[in-house]
Amino acid sequence: MSLFKRSEKNDSAAVEQSSAEFPLRTPSARQRIMRFFNTPRIVGKMSVVGEKESKGPMGKYFSKCETDDKMGEKTFERAEIRMVDTAVRGAIRDARLGIDDIDVMVSGDLLNQMTTSSYAVRDLGIPHIGIYGACSTMTEGLMLAASLVDSGYYKNVVCAASSHFATAERQFRYPLEYGCQRPPYAQWTVTGAGASVVSTNNAQTERFPKIVAAIPGLITDYGVNDLNNMGAAMAPAALDTMYTMLTQSGFTENDFDMIVTGDLGKLGSDILRDLMRERGIRLGQNYIDCGNIIYDVDQKCYQGGSGCACSATIFNSYIMDKLTSGEFKRIAYLATGALMSTQSCYQGETIPCISHAVIVESPFGGEK
Amino acid sequence: MSLFKRSEKNDSAAVEQSSAEFPLRTPSARQRIMRFFNTPRIVGKMSVVGEKESKGPMGKYFSKCETDDKMGEKTFERAEIRMVDTAVRGAIRDARLGIDDIDVMVSGDLLNQMTTSSYAVRDLGIPHIGIYGACSTMTEGLMLAASLVDSGYYKNVVCAASSHFATAERQFRYPLEYGCQRPPYAQWTVTGAGASVVSTNNAQTERFPKIVAAIPGLITDYGVNDLNNMGAAMAPAALDTMYTMLTQSGFTENDFDMIVTGDLGKLGSDILRDLMRERGIRLGQNYIDCGNIIYDVDQKCYQGGSGCACSATIFNSYIMDKLTSGEFKRIAYLATGALMSTQSCYQGETIPCISHAVIVESPFGGEK
Repeated sequence: MSLFKRSEKNDSAAVEQSSAEFPLRTPSARQRIMRFFNTPRIVGKMSVVGEKESKGPMGKYFSKCETDDKMGEKTFERAEIRMVDTAVRGAIRDARLGIDDIDVMVSGDLLNQMTTSSYAVRDLGIPHIGIYGACSTMTEGLMLAASLVDSGYYKNVVCAASSHFATAERQFRYPLEYGCQRPPYAQWTVTGAGASVVSTNNAQTERFPKIVAAIPGLITDYGVNDLNNMGAAMAPAALDTMYTMLTQSGFTENDFDMIVTGDLGKLGSDILRDLMRERGIRLGQNYIDCGNIIYDVDQKCYQGGSGCACSATIFNSYIMDKLTSGEFKRIAYLATGALMSTQSCYQGETIPCISHAVIVESPFGGEK
Repeated sequence: MSLFKRSEKNDSAAVEQSSAEFPLRTPSARQRIMRFFNTPRIVGKMSVVGEKESKGPMGKYFSKCETDDKMGEKTFERAEIRMVDTAVRGAIRDARLGIDDIDVMVSGDLLNQMTTSSYAVRDLGIPHIGIYGACSTMTEGLMLAASLVDSGYYKNVVCAASSHFATAERQFRYPLEYGCQRPPYAQWTVTGAGASVVSTNNAQTERFPKIVAAIPGLITDYGVNDLNNMGAAMAPAALDTMYTMLTQSGFTENDFDMIVTGDLGKLGSDILRDLMRERGIRLGQNYIDCGNIIYDVDQKCYQGGSGCACSATIFNSYIMDKLTSGEFKRIAYLATGALMSTQSCYQGETIPCISHAVIVESPFGGEK
């Protein structure tokens, strides 16, 4: 938190100005929540991660851990494609369905022109809806998949998101070979892929967790322009969506067994707690950030994990497991994404961010 | 066509192999069509183009023509953002709505991490669903907007797509300053932005064109890997979606006043005609390609226009005008997108392509 405060005082008039403006922008009169009355079910899931993630505190929950970051492929990009393929096929198998049973796939990733996703889907042969929400991709995918199933257009929709440390560093910062030093407020892009199958609610699927509502995010920008400090940039976007969720869903922060943000990291989630407290909402023990819990302190990832896969893998392992068993009755999942490109930052632009939310309930009733 | 044939014979075993496999992949048993029984209406539209486009055959139909490619901004990227802003605000005004009446915006563009779209939406302050379908973005947006409105989640959804010759050349090929020579099968990225407002069908909106169905695309790859030859790469994707549409919608090719593809260009649309003929379907005078008609032969654009804006601007001007007046009773709009990145091509990958379709009918009944 101190880092953010310091940069605010020293050099960023824009930050202070935007902060002052913010109260005017929310609460919004706009009704943003989408309610899924037919409660689409998440009937299959899979999470694939790299070696570093498998050695972190969440390691035991992931479905598959890859020990080679290139997975025997020629490039890191090819390895990321392989992980998506593995996660999607695994999720479909977990749902006891075949590839041909899937009506459409909704997916995205961090790479330019979303090549990971496109190449993976090309080989899978499923009709595709490409989405881009940076690290918020998994919640954007779940939201759209739930809406397509809830309204009866399709029976089975698979959604997926992925990221890879080496491909993301090469594209957004520096190729690993340069050996650049990372600042203490940097985060570590998670190597992995997560996939979920969302299906119509019926007698066969009613024992699975259900998606009951979703909220599309508003693009928020407090004037942060440091490509390494994603947590500080994204916290205001999480604030906006979380605040909207708590004012429009009818649930208070205590009605959730877990409120999960994507990849704010240690610094970003501290900022979010502060921002929420200013709004009169105290986030308690039931608030976690996936970026904050995916690595151990001694793994030298500074503020924690980031990337689409950070929350996509934890949602499709730990969180889904607890929802399926009924240990969690209701959770809110708000992944956050930073929507800049290297080019926009070179041209002096600040970092616009977004956070989409989904509310998921256990099959054993969501009452608290 | 001769160019495509030659490359097929000389150097690309992959092309021949994929072509031979293709008949096995379609017709697909998968029911892909989404039908919108509540017939969402397109109640507002706007198209903004650059100077070159305004001097082409479609010039008189566009809502606004910019004479300066930088629009007084410091960078081409900023100019593209301004065009999206102008198009979206114009479409909302055209629908006689205010920004606050719009529930959500669905948009995308060609730039890395879709920065045009994100920065434009940040300034507009509308909740956002980011999509990526390269040049197929406008149909992907219309499809999702129609599904969100048709199923009653939202009342008014705006969708938009944009491209800019200078930003696209810099990113995908070479910065303009290099003065590189373009091969005869190249296309010219359209500078422009198009936006549509999709609203619930009711007494006020029933006089506007309606979206009755949509088909998400399948990613198709015949092995083309020439970044300049987008038409040849994308034609098979258009084939797949068009064939699916004609087998699943209940309409034959003669039931449409116009079948419109996005930006196959002269070469690509000739290839599509050939591919469709091999499937026993003859595309007649009612088939046009936006890339093929946006520039005059003497404008030196070789195979024609390309980019998200190519079909987005023509749909939101010429085609919407004819639908609103009732001159067109029913049209099919299939924009096509090439999903590669420069990095994927450097790494030796071929170009995967996609085409999404929407079927739009005049308010004066769609019967033919």
